[in-house]
This record gives sequence, C-alpha cells and structure tokens, in this order.
Amino acid sequence: MIEADSIVRKEIKHFSANKIIDKDDLLAIEEPLEVQISYVSDGVRVRKSISVTMRTPGQDKELGVGFIFTEGIIRHPKQIESIRSGPLEGNKVLIALKDNEIPNLPSTERNFYTTSSCGVCGKSSIDAIKTVSAYGKQNDRITVDSRILLRLTRELEKQQSIFLSTGGLHASALFDLEGRFLMLREDVGRHNALDKVLGALFLQDELPLDNKILLLSGRASFELIQKAAMAGIRIIAAIGAPSSLAVDLAEESNITLAGFLRRDTFNIYSGHERLTGI
Amino acid sequence: MIEADSIVRKEIKHFSANKIIDKDDLLAIEEPLEVQISYVSDGVRVRKSISVTMRTPGQDKELGVGFIFTEGIIRHPKQIESIRSGPLEGNKVLIALKDNEIPNLPSTERNFYTTSSCGVCGKSSIDAIKTVSAYGKQNDRITVDSRILLRLTRELEKQQSIFLSTGGLHASALFDLEGRFLMLREDVGRHNALDKVLGALFLQDELPLDNKILLLSGRASFELIQKAAMAGIRIIAAIGAPSSLAVDLAEESNITLAGFLRRDTFNIYSGHERLTGI
Repeated sequence: MIEADSIVRKEIKHFSANKIIDKDDLLAIEEPLEVQISYVSDGVRVRKSISVTMRTPGQDKELGVGFIFTEGIIRHPKQIESIRSGPLEGNKVLIALKDNEIPNLPSTERNFYTTSSCGVCGKSSIDAIKTVSAYGKQNDRITVDSRILLRLTRELEKQQSIFLSTGGLHASALFDLEGRFLMLREDVGRHNALDKVLGALFLQDELPLDNKILLLSGRASFELIQKAAMAGIRIIAAIGAPSSLAVDLAEESNITLAGFLRRDTFNIYSGHERLTGI
Repeated sequence: MIEADSIVRKEIKHFSANKIIDKDDLLAIEEPLEVQISYVSDGVRVRKSISVTMRTPGQDKELGVGFIFTEGIIRHPKQIESIRSGPLEGNKVLIALKDNEIPNLPSTERNFYTTSSCGVCGKSSIDAIKTVSAYGKQNDRITVDSRILLRLTRELEKQQSIFLSTGGLHASALFDLEGRFLMLREDVGRHNALDKVLGALFLQDELPLDNKILLLSGRASFELIQKAAMAGIRIIAAIGAPSSLAVDLAEESNITLAGFLRRDTFNIYSGHERLTGI
C-alpha cells in the first residue's frame, strides 16, 4: 500500500567505511492536519477546530472521523452529513454533522492533552520557528568527526538502563563534540525525554547548545527538531528514520541531521558539510 | 539510572512453546503531568494550565520548564521565580514567573496541537473511558487461539510496505479471530494509524469491533488502549512493550493485551483467559 502522498524520495548522503556516497532515500511524509467539525447550534451552523495533529497524508477522512469518534464527540456514522478533505481544503478535514445532531464536545480544553506546539501548516511552522528561536547562526563553524558519531550508539546502550529493562522508553542524550557523554533522559513520550534534557540545561543557563550533539533513540519527527532548534542545537543524530518535515526543518534551521545511526554507518539528511574525518 | 518512580514490577504470563508460565516483568510508568504557569497580569497573579502530557515520572520540573521554553513561552531561566512539583502537587508542575515577567503565550489554542484526549490524572481517565465508551461487555465469550497470535507478525511484515521502505511509520492492523488480515493503516503518529483504522470501520458502521484482533506495530501506550476500548476491541497484540497505564486500562476495560509479540513467544499483560490452544 505505498501511496504517492505518503512517501517522498530524497537525495541524501550515506556514510560507510569512512566514505560519503550519494544515495536516494524514501522518507515518510509528515504534515499537519486540522480536524474541524460543523454543527447547528441555536439555529446557526458553526464551525469548530477540534485538533491539529502531525500525520502522514492519506485517509484523512478516516483519520478525522476516527479521532472525533474515539474522543467521544460523535457516536454513530448516521450523525455525519458530509466529510470534506483534499487539495481544496488544504491540510484540513471538515466533518459536518446533520442539522439535529449535537456533538459531545469536551467541557474544558484540558480534556485534550498536547504534545507540542505547531502551526496549522508545515510551512508556517517552519517560518514560525525561525522567528521564535532565541539563537541565530552564531558559532557556526563547528564540525564533528564522523567517527565520533559512530561511537554514540554504544554509549547510548550503556546509559539507557530503563529502556533495556522495560523496552518501553524513548531516550534523548547529549554529548559534547568530542563524543563525551553529558546527559540522558528517558520517557514514554519522545518529546518529553527531549524536554527533560533541554529543561535541565535551560535551568543551568547552559543554552544555546550549539557545541553539543543531540542523540535520539528512535525516529526524528518534526517536533523533536523544532525543540532542538529552539535550544540552538546544530548536530542531531537519530537511531531511527527522520520524517519529511523533520528534514525540511533541519535544512531551514541549518542543523546537521543524521539518521539510521549504527556502529559503522549512518545517513546524512542535511548539513553534511559539518562532518570531518571522511 | 533506574528510578523507582519510572518503572514498576508486574506479574504477567509468558507464552512460549505452547505453554503459559508466570513471570515478573518491568513496565515503564506512564502517567499524565499537567504543566501550569503563574504570572502577574494587571497587578493580579494568575495561574494558567499550559498542557497535559503523558509522561514517565521523574524530572518533572525539567520537563515542565523544557516544555514552556521549547514552546517559546519563556526565554531565560531568570524569568522563573519558583518551580513546584512533587507528592503535594500530584501530577502537576507549577512554574511561577517573577512579578515583572510576562509569558509569551500562544495567541490561539491552535498553536498547541493535540494527539488524543485524556483527563488530568490516570485514574479519572480510566473512569472516564468506562462512562464514554458506547460498548459494554456484550459478546464476551470470545476466545483466540494462541497460535493465531504468533502468525500475526509475519502478516504484518507482508502488509506494512511503507514502513519497510522508509523505516519511519507506525502501523495498526485488524485481523479476525481466525487471524485473517482485514486492514492496515500507517502513519508517523501511532495514534493516527489507529484512528484511520477505527474511522474507516466506523464509517462502514462495523463497530463494535469485539470480534477482531488489533495488532500494533510498536509500543502500546495508554492512548492506544483508550481508542481501542472506545471501539469495543477486546484483543490487542503489540510488537513492543506496553506502559503501566496501558496495562491498567486494559485490565479495567476487560481487554486481552499481549506484548512483545514474536513468531514464537509473547507476554500477556491482561485477560489471558481468552487464549486457547495452550
């Protein structure tokens, strides 16, 4: 079930045996989707934004309906008058209820829990981050030896004790540019593990982190790159794959992003010019 | 860095070589945390709830501060007067800004994107789901042959084409009780993959799904079990580990939850009495 709007082909660099080669890679597309419902209230049809989620395009109608059903907002397909999504709507799905159907909306905002901030469309988020981040392009002659990146996975395994005992946690770890371990935090939510690291160093007034390497135990999503950019991080290595929007943001933010980090190879999705020892 | 409040020991069942044995397992703890800030507005100190996130306890202060920093709400540690968290606060962290510090709050709700619904504390969410779910304990004599569960991973590999090509997607798949493949959806967000499956079957008026098996390609978090419970699903198998709150909710909702599913073994975290062929 490979769909054209779910994956994108990208030219990347692949590091192996102390050489960098050009390679084609496939990235999972990550883009925001806003779920809206419309319904009749006091005789007037109103439209309400329910959520914005980062998703892979495809089956947007099912995603929107599944979300409002599992939230308890609607209970039966017969309540739905129409569902609109597609190029005309942009990254939106609009679910219109029938005239006499009242959605069971959460009484307070607190019924929805949030994971991170993001604008409604990928482009505006990427623009937003450049405005908001306190750290510009200072100290931008940093480099890192490729062989140091290769050493990081071993260090992560050594440090990531809870993951090893439960198999259930994501980790974010910081290293200096010589690969010396500085800090690791774990959490069931990957964004939380990173917030814990950044919060700790923020409280120590150690930001910007433009002379550190951030190591992510899993995949690199947009929100993780966004958080790292906020803290001035310039070099990110992930054990897993990055999403399309993560790579876009890394490029826009002048961040070196490596993925599929192993003991002897990795891919470079942006900023390969910071790597030495090749 | 194993911390007592990050993992919990649990007695589970382990299936191997057609036998079930008792076993002790370690689960990563998942619990909600509410992040609040307080600041002076027009001469009055106000308190505002910023977000609720599902997290692993430990370093709550760093997590809360990291979150509001990476959201752009504060820019410097000197803006902070005090941070309170701990047993007295419950699952909350309260960050108080100094009298003359104005937080840079997002202008609209839409700046925070949501992944799922959840109450402020795990207990109230678990209670809430029982109230909200449209499907009670009907059709509850279903059983599933253990050997059918063992066949699911192979089927998932066959179907999960985008994951194989990008390494970047989560999948949710549905099977009938005889292990026949019905549907698979993939997404960068695991909750979205499940919403796509449930939304598709909701639109076909196929709910409740109490005669189906839900297969999750990764870890089983609270929100995935919550969504499955909403759709009346009774049997869930995950390739990865479940969190503590996922297991609690599965038990409360009378859901059979298997984890670490492989071709020859799995763990059973709740509802083992539905398994036959042992």
